[in-house]
Amino acid sequence: MQKADIIAENLRRFRVDNWSEGYFSINEAGEVVVRCQGQSIPLTNVIEAAHNLGLSTPFIIRFPFLIGEQIKKFYRAFQHAKEEFNYKGEHKAVFPIKVNQNRHFIERLLHYGKDFSYGLEAGSKAELFAVLISDIPENALITCNGFKDREFLDLAVIGKQLGKDICVIIESVEELVGLIDIYRRAETIPDIGFRIKLSSRGSGKWEKSSGEGAKFGLSSTEILLAIDLLKEHDLLDRVNLLHFHIGSQITNVRTMKRAIREAGVIFAEVAKLGLNIKYLNIGGGIGVDYSGSKSSSLASAEYSIEEFANDVVFTMEDMCNKHGLERPGIVTESGRVIAAYHAIVVTDLVEIMGAEYDLSHYQQTQNEVKPLLELKYALEYMNEKNYIEYYHDALEFKEDLRTMFTLGLCSLVDKSNGDILFQEIVEKTIAIALRKGENFEKDPFLRKFLAEKYLCNFSVFNAIPDSWAIRQLFPIMPLKHLDRPCDNFGVITDITCDSDGVVNAYQFPDTAENEYLPLHDEMADYPIGIFLTGAYQEVLANKHNLLGQMNEISVDFNEEGKLDVVSSEQGDTVKDVLNGMRYDDAFINNQSKRFFQSMDNPKLFRRFRSYLNSYTYMIKDGHD
Amino acid sequence: MQKADIIAENLRRFRVDNWSEGYFSINEAGEVVVRCQGQSIPLTNVIEAAHNLGLSTPFIIRFPFLIGEQIKKFYRAFQHAKEEFNYKGEHKAVFPIKVNQNRHFIERLLHYGKDFSYGLEAGSKAELFAVLISDIPENALITCNGFKDREFLDLAVIGKQLGKDICVIIESVEELVGLIDIYRRAETIPDIGFRIKLSSRGSGKWEKSSGEGAKFGLSSTEILLAIDLLKEHDLLDRVNLLHFHIGSQITNVRTMKRAIREAGVIFAEVAKLGLNIKYLNIGGGIGVDYSGSKSSSLASAEYSIEEFANDVVFTMEDMCNKHGLERPGIVTESGRVIAAYHAIVVTDLVEIMGAEYDLSHYQQTQNEVKPLLELKYALEYMNEKNYIEYYHDALEFKEDLRTMFTLGLCSLVDKSNGDILFQEIVEKTIAIALRKGENFEKDPFLRKFLAEKYLCNFSVFNAIPDSWAIRQLFPIMPLKHLDRPCDNFGVITDITCDSDGVVNAYQFPDTAENEYLPLHDEMADYPIGIFLTGAYQEVLANKHNLLGQMNEISVDFNEEGKLDVVSSEQGDTVKDVLNGMRYDDAFINNQSKRFFQSMDNPKLFRRFRSYLNSYTYMIKDGHD
Repeated sequence: MQKADIIAENLRRFRVDNWSEGYFSINEAGEVVVRCQGQSIPLTNVIEAAHNLGLSTPFIIRFPFLIGEQIKKFYRAFQHAKEEFNYKGEHKAVFPIKVNQNRHFIERLLHYGKDFSYGLEAGSKAELFAVLISDIPENALITCNGFKDREFLDLAVIGKQLGKDICVIIESVEELVGLIDIYRRAETIPDIGFRIKLSSRGSGKWEKSSGEGAKFGLSSTEILLAIDLLKEHDLLDRVNLLHFHIGSQITNVRTMKRAIREAGVIFAEVAKLGLNIKYLNIGGGIGVDYSGSKSSSLASAEYSIEEFANDVVFTMEDMCNKHGLERPGIVTESGRVIAAYHAIVVTDLVEIMGAEYDLSHYQQTQNEVKPLLELKYALEYMNEKNYIEYYHDALEFKEDLRTMFTLGLCSLVDKSNGDILFQEIVEKTIAIALRKGENFEKDPFLRKFLAEKYLCNFSVFNAIPDSWAIRQLFPIMPLKHLDRPCDNFGVITDITCDSDGVVNAYQFPDTAENEYLPLHDEMADYPIGIFLTGAYQEVLANKHNLLGQMNEISVDFNEEGKLDVVSSEQGDTVKDVLNGMRYDDAFINNQSKRFFQSMDNPKLFRRFRSYLNSYTYMIKDGHD
Repeated sequence: MQKADIIAENLRRFRVDNWSEGYFSINEAGEVVVRCQGQSIPLTNVIEAAHNLGLSTPFIIRFPFLIGEQIKKFYRAFQHAKEEFNYKGEHKAVFPIKVNQNRHFIERLLHYGKDFSYGLEAGSKAELFAVLISDIPENALITCNGFKDREFLDLAVIGKQLGKDICVIIESVEELVGLIDIYRRAETIPDIGFRIKLSSRGSGKWEKSSGEGAKFGLSSTEILLAIDLLKEHDLLDRVNLLHFHIGSQITNVRTMKRAIREAGVIFAEVAKLGLNIKYLNIGGGIGVDYSGSKSSSLASAEYSIEEFANDVVFTMEDMCNKHGLERPGIVTESGRVIAAYHAIVVTDLVEIMGAEYDLSHYQQTQNEVKPLLELKYALEYMNEKNYIEYYHDALEFKEDLRTMFTLGLCSLVDKSNGDILFQEIVEKTIAIALRKGENFEKDPFLRKFLAEKYLCNFSVFNAIPDSWAIRQLFPIMPLKHLDRPCDNFGVITDITCDSDGVVNAYQFPDTAENEYLPLHDEMADYPIGIFLTGAYQEVLANKHNLLGQMNEISVDFNEEGKLDVVSSEQGDTVKDVLNGMRYDDAFINNQSKRFFQSMDNPKLFRRFRSYLNSYTYMIKDGHD
């Protein structure tokens, strides 16, 4: 095959065009590139830049311009839909900061969102604090969701005093009682929103966010009670927003249309009761097509941002028409689709485990046991006609040998010899099958046997916790050598002492090969990228085995279209993770001094202490 | 019912005796108590002590003496088994620090483990550093598992120089190559162990830790290669341990017996090849019966520690006999069963959501719609004969009303009235059923309708991440008022903005009511305990919604059998979680100064800044 053909084949195999929204591709040198507005940078350049800054793998690469691209795409879709359906209300978006609270992310988000008055949503006290020290654009909205104690509500009051356009969305009547109490004593009062409980449910994994049994929101009776309460305290005019949320990663838009129609009825009803609602906040939930399969599976989404915006705006216009309503502003809270693309976790290969051993490792002995002789015979005499039969026989002989070994009836050398012969038989089987044009990959045993463990320097629990917890898919692929065919099947394995520290599913959920990733054979320098990790993964990360926060680097294009490092951060050191586990500095100092006291070996002591500053992951070249 | 009967009933309903190993019970005042050696402390006293220290909920309570009890139980079980089967090898245990790296835990573990020379196992560089600054007892073993870079191996060398009895367990031939390279240049050399890959698999969720496809360990061919390599470098005599691990939370002991027999064969074989193995390290995996069901389900274990020890030692003796081996030391690495019991997460009720509204909230209107009239009729005329039929009719009328509402054919008041009537009908249905002695709880709809959301001040993602990620069960119960019947069904809901922040299964996995927890009706002061959280939960915790590390308090019995606070720690503040998200102090200072500059309101500025020191969870009494 020509190099160009191999590259095309690899693009197809890794489904790059399906999940990357055009942001990633493979260049002529077989390297993955990030692309934006006609410019492109090979990811290997970013890796080099990271290494030059002393950052070793694993690290997070941020491409802030991809946040910008997604924001533009998102706003344009709504702008276009508003024009198309002549919708007169405005579209105001807020980013739910829970999706990614990292300052380097939020700063760039607000930078790119400036022209659109892109606001933020906070779901906890600490999140609201972060929001209030951020450079929110003029006229941007701040919404406060979730359960609020007095401190959270007071912070909202301070936000209002700072001149922010802040809306506190109440979740229950009891919360409203506390809120009224605070607001009566406050000089300025934020706006109030109602989260309403719809009876229509969402779709997808998080459909339980909605429906009558949902965790959040006011029922009909509670809306009436809330209105009475506010009227009593002369605060009815502060209510300017109705909110619902049908769940994260919505798999089809029909459920959103149904929800808007139901919310519209409530909108019309509360208007009759004296509420002057300015915004309908339809929540978040636009899905990201992680698997690139455009399906209704958890890891996918059937629709584009454009379809979503069109359906929402059309339904809003239709619903307002029907109820004779002034067009409210449409507030959206989608975060995943804005954040997911901008970050990549880069790890690299430590070792291919369970590497094959060939006949050169065979140790001839006297008196070989019968299954071994049978395996030898099979290997010698298998041919195009009998190979399937011989392969199946070999499976049995291997099992016989295993049984004999566990019964103490053959030696470790016999067992090893058997494994080697079996490996050779499998390889011969595959070679013959390939020659005959048969698809050996369909045989689950063969596939499993062929798959090798690619031990990579990262932690599943830290880099992609959703892969562990909710079986979320993330596209994974090697970042270079893609001008060569990927002949191996691999399973990406992490360095934790946990058998769950493995990636069990890849971006091919509709194929039998989903459990294995096409990869190259052993390579000295083999960086691997885990894509679309910009949403939720950083805050859901844990420090299993004390593998801590990763290094990160944020890069942009400079004026000449070349790579420009915007910022970088060191990840956790040994000291950082120990501090987190209540080993404070004083304790560490005292204990280490105590143990080394009697030794009188200051050099050793210094060597030991230096490991406190070591990155928690594996270091390639080591420490000297 | 008498108080004593109610308490007995609550003990039974929450299955306290099944999962608590006798450590927890309910006293005459209806409070949960922790018990040890004839002494007991009500948990409410600990809560009071925590409050006096300024620690609000949620917090972790540690009972270090329960670590001691479990260690004693564990060692005694092996001691007893050794006597019973006349096993001449020693039993040496190491605690895998990954199960709980918290210093307060590890310090007490080593304190109680001193008499037994209880050692530690490290699975990463940072873990080994923590181990090396801990007060390891004399003669205790340190084992190093997992994948090791040069820094990790060098730390092991330093450990050896410090005089520790340290064994590096190699996972692959490649690792051995690096190790030999370092060891050749080192002055002292730690011992070497081989992790072997067995073909027998474990049982339970983590069975994939073992078997030929396992992530870890050496195959037969690799063992032979490793032996050759070591021989070549004259290091064969450093190998003193064979290790296997069949997985965490083993559900039955048969698999362990099978594994020991297979390991025994390898043991005998490598002995023939010149290895002088001193220890057989059988790994960890003793299960904890979280659900108290003594079953083979994920959350349970069919066997006791005593049965486990007996089966292991008997099989070891039998296996050694068969192969004519010197009795090796048995090394065990069980951690979960040692750590789980000692910690409890205490949360408290913020609010019962979706509380019922009765007929006093009914708003009579003119021209009521038909389904409403039907519901009224049903409520009025339902009786012991027709109540099931009328209840089923009511379900339909409610649905009709919902449809009418979404079509704009009835008002919000009608909808609310319908919900209220339906609620009354459900309650009347249950009252009649109870009177007739029928079990209404079997009706899934009724059960769901009855269940209320108990919003509690904690984060599932932080307190019990395994509940979210792997659907692990943790026993949960109220900590007081247990001298009154629990008439409600509740679902424990956390304060995150995430619909997954809910506990969906409780300690009754074999019953239809498993989705709901028996709870009391609204209580002003209602602390709830989540038990058996001492293993893995702290390090797997994440900071979703920026809800951070929890407060903690460690308590013991003093000489008079009264409560003694050993240590306490503040949890994360707003500042701490923001620092973790790269909002460094300088940034926070600059931004907040900038925003407040123009206001000339130093009091407001101070109020705002004071929230930096606020606990990230809800604060009951608020901030002034």
